Amino acid sequence: MNCIIAQSGGPTSVINSSVYGLVKANKEFKIYDNVFAGLNGIEGILNKKIINLSDMDNEKLETFRNSPSSGLGSCRYKLKDYKDDSKEYENLFEILNSLNIKAFFYVGGNDSMDTISKLSSFAKENNIDITFIGIPKTIDNDLMYTDHTPGFGSASKFIATSTLETYLDSKVYTENGIFIIETMGRDTGWLAASGALATVNGQPCADLVYLPEVAFSVSKFLNDTRKLFEKNNHVYIVASEGLRDENKNFITSVKAQGHDNFGHSQLGGVGQYLKELIIQSGITKRVKALELGVSQRCSMHCASSIDLDEAVMVGFDALKYSKDKTSSGFMVAIKRESNNPYKSSSFLVEANKVANNVKYFPKEWINEEGNNITEEGLNYLRPLIDLDHELNNENNLPIYHSFVI
Amino acid sequence: MNCIIAQSGGPTSVINSSVYGLVKANKEFKIYDNVFAGLNGIEGILNKKIINLSDMDNEKLETFRNSPSSGLGSCRYKLKDYKDDSKEYENLFEILNSLNIKAFFYVGGNDSMDTISKLSSFAKENNIDITFIGIPKTIDNDLMYTDHTPGFGSASKFIATSTLETYLDSKVYTENGIFIIETMGRDTGWLAASGALATVNGQPCADLVYLPEVAFSVSKFLNDTRKLFEKNNHVYIVASEGLRDENKNFITSVKAQGHDNFGHSQLGGVGQYLKELIIQSGITKRVKALELGVSQRCSMHCASSIDLDEAVMVGFDALKYSKDKTSSGFMVAIKRESNNPYKSSSFLVEANKVANNVKYFPKEWINEEGNNITEEGLNYLRPLIDLDHELNNENNLPIYHSFVI
Repeated sequence: MNCIIAQSGGPTSVINSSVYGLVKANKEFKIYDNVFAGLNGIEGILNKKIINLSDMDNEKLETFRNSPSSGLGSCRYKLKDYKDDSKEYENLFEILNSLNIKAFFYVGGNDSMDTISKLSSFAKENNIDITFIGIPKTIDNDLMYTDHTPGFGSASKFIATSTLETYLDSKVYTENGIFIIETMGRDTGWLAASGALATVNGQPCADLVYLPEVAFSVSKFLNDTRKLFEKNNHVYIVASEGLRDENKNFITSVKAQGHDNFGHSQLGGVGQYLKELIIQSGITKRVKALELGVSQRCSMHCASSIDLDEAVMVGFDALKYSKDKTSSGFMVAIKRESNNPYKSSSFLVEANKVANNVKYFPKEWINEEGNNITEEGLNYLRPLIDLDHELNNENNLPIYHSFVI
Repeated sequence: MNCIIAQSGGPTSVINSSVYGLVKANKEFKIYDNVFAGLNGIEGILNKKIINLSDMDNEKLETFRNSPSSGLGSCRYKLKDYKDDSKEYENLFEILNSLNIKAFFYVGGNDSMDTISKLSSFAKENNIDITFIGIPKTIDNDLMYTDHTPGFGSASKFIATSTLETYLDSKVYTENGIFIIETMGRDTGWLAASGALATVNGQPCADLVYLPEVAFSVSKFLNDTRKLFEKNNHVYIVASEGLRDENKNFITSVKAQGHDNFGHSQLGGVGQYLKELIIQSGITKRVKALELGVSQRCSMHCASSIDLDEAVMVGFDALKYSKDKTSSGFMVAIKRESNNPYKSSSFLVEANKVANNVKYFPKEWINEEGNNITEEGLNYLRPLIDLDHELNNENNLPIYHSFVI
C-alpha cells in the first residue's frame, strides 16, 4: 500500500521540509511501500502528474528539505461540494485507487484544509479506505487551533531582519524623512507585528506598526506620524498589506488581477498609498516605501531553524498519525510546550474547524493607541524566529532543488 | 597628531568595515594619537559633530564592523570649487587644525573622490600639511581603476540570492506568468548582471537581463519576452533601474524627488513599467514586479565575506598609505591578484581620475542579443559574492551598532 502528498496555496520557505519529514518518517517506520507526490496539488493529481519520492537518495532529500518554495508545485484549485458535483471526486478516487493509495497528505493553509475535510467526508460516506490528513503551511500564521504555522517563523525572521537593516539605512542623513515597510499577511497582522521585533542599541526600530485588526483611520495615522516626525525628524512605519478602514474596506483599491479562485482579493500597494498620504498632508516629501513582496515567503537564506524543524515535525508526525484511520479529516497542529527553552509538539485538530476560518492577531497584544505591539505579543513571536539554518552552497549560492523546474 | 574619517553618499552593507580597518591599523601601527570621526560626512565636520573612535572597546568595534549602513552617518554635500568660494574650505581647515588633524579619510563613491581631490588640491596650494585619502565604497561598482568596490560583492550576493529564491517562488503554478526583478545600479549594469549568477538544477534562473549599457528597445523587449513565454509559459527578467532608450533618456519618468545635490536623477519603477508594457502587449496578465530597493545596500545578513574583508583592507591600507604624504589626493583601489584561489591587494589611484567618472559594465561581457551576461562576465562576478559572514545575535536577530541613532 502507498501514500501520496501534495502542496497547495502560496509557497513558504519551509514547505518542502514537511515533505522531507514525511518521507523520513516512512523510511523509519516503513508504513507505506511508496511515498508518491502529486505535482501542482490536487490539480496535478487529477492530471496524473505523479512522482515517487521513495526513490530519492539522501543527499537530494536533504537539498530538497532546504529548498524554499513549493518544490512539488502548487495550485489554487477549489474542489466543488461533492453534493453538487461528485465527478471530480470520482476521477480523483479512481486515480488514488489505481495507485493503491491509503493515505493522502495535503500541505497547505485554510483552503487546503477545506479540501482535506471534503475529501475525508466523501471517503467516509462512500466507505473508501483512504485517510486524509492536513499539514499546515502558511506565512500568514492565520490558522486556528495551532499555536502557529510552519512558514511563519521564517517569514517573521526575514521581516524583522529587513526592518532592522532598512531602519539603519533610513537614518544615515541629517534629514532622513519617513520610511514605510509593507508586509504581507492578508487579513491578519502576524507578519506586520514581526517588524516590531527589530531593535538597535536596545531601542525598537519601528515607531508605528499598523495591523488589519485595527480599523485604519487616515486622520489618526497622519496625526501619529506628524507628531513623531516633529519630535524625531524621522519615522519608521510597518504596515500590513491588508489594512481596512472602519467600514471594513481595504484602504487600497483592489489590483488589476482582482480575485483568485477562492475569492481572495489580491492585495498590495499600502506602502505607496501611505507614502502619498504623508506627502499630500505636507508632513514631508522625504518618504520611502518598500514592499517586501514575495521575498517574505521564499527567503530561505534567512530562515528560522525552529521553523524548519517544526515543518519537518508536522510532516513526520502526519505519517505516524495516518496509521490510525480515525485521523482522517484532521490537521496536524503545533502546541507550544514551553518558551524557555522553547519546545513544541504536535496534535490533531479537525480540518473543517480550521478550514475557511481565520486566526487574528489578538487585540490584547496591540497597544492602546492601536499602533504597536505589546511586550506579551513580542514574547509570543521571539522564539519562533530563531537562528539561521546552515545551507549547502555551490558557487557561493545556496543549492536548491525543485521537482517542477 | 590625529586623523579623521567620515562617510559620504549612499550606504552599503560593509561601509563600516572600512572604518573598522582604519581604527584597527592605527591600533597596530600607532601612527596617530586619536582617530576621530565626523558624523554625517563633511557636513557634520563643518558642524563640529565629531567623535573619538580610539576609545572604542574591541567588542563594540567588532559589532560596528558587522553593522550595515553608514554608522557614522552620511551626507550628500557638494563642496563648491574653491576658486569660486573658499569660505567653506577655510572653515573646514580651521576645524581640522584645531583638532591637529594630519590625515583625512573619506569613504564614498565618485562624488566623495571629487571632494578628496578638491581638498587635497586646496591643501597643497596653501601649504597645509594634511593628507587626504579616499576609501572606495559603492554597491554600484561604478568606480574606475579599482577592480571592484567594497559594498558591491554583498549587494551582488543579495541580488543573486533573491533572484534564485524568487525564481523558485515564481514557478510553482502551472500558469506562472512573468516575473521581473528590478535592481539598483544607476547608469551601470553591475548589479543587474549579478542576477545572472543564480542557477537551479544547473540552469540559469534569469532568462533575460537588461542593463543600462544596452539601449533599451520596447519592441525588442516585447519580442524577447513573447518568444520565451510562448515556449516556456514562464519568463524571469532582471532589469536595472537605469535603463535608457536609444536617445539616452531613462525609460521611466523621473520621480517626484527630482534630483539630489549632485544632479543625479532619482530612479526606480522600471519593473512596474515593464510589467505594464507586457500586460498592454497582450502577452499575459500574470506579471509580477519586485523592486528590491534599499535592501540591496543594507542586507548584512546576506553579506559576502570577501566583500567584508576587502572593505576592512582598504580602510587598513588607507591608514598605512597616509604615512607617505605623496598619497594625498589618491584613492585606495583594489587589484585582483588571482581568481582561484581568489586574492586581492590594494594600490593607489588619483582621486580626480575616479571622481565624476563612471565604469560601465563591459560590452564584451554582454551577449550578442544584448539581453544576458556572458560566461566571462559571470567569472568576474563569482568570486566576489563569497559565503555569508557569521554575525553575533541577540534575541535571534543580528546585533548592530550605529553612532547616529
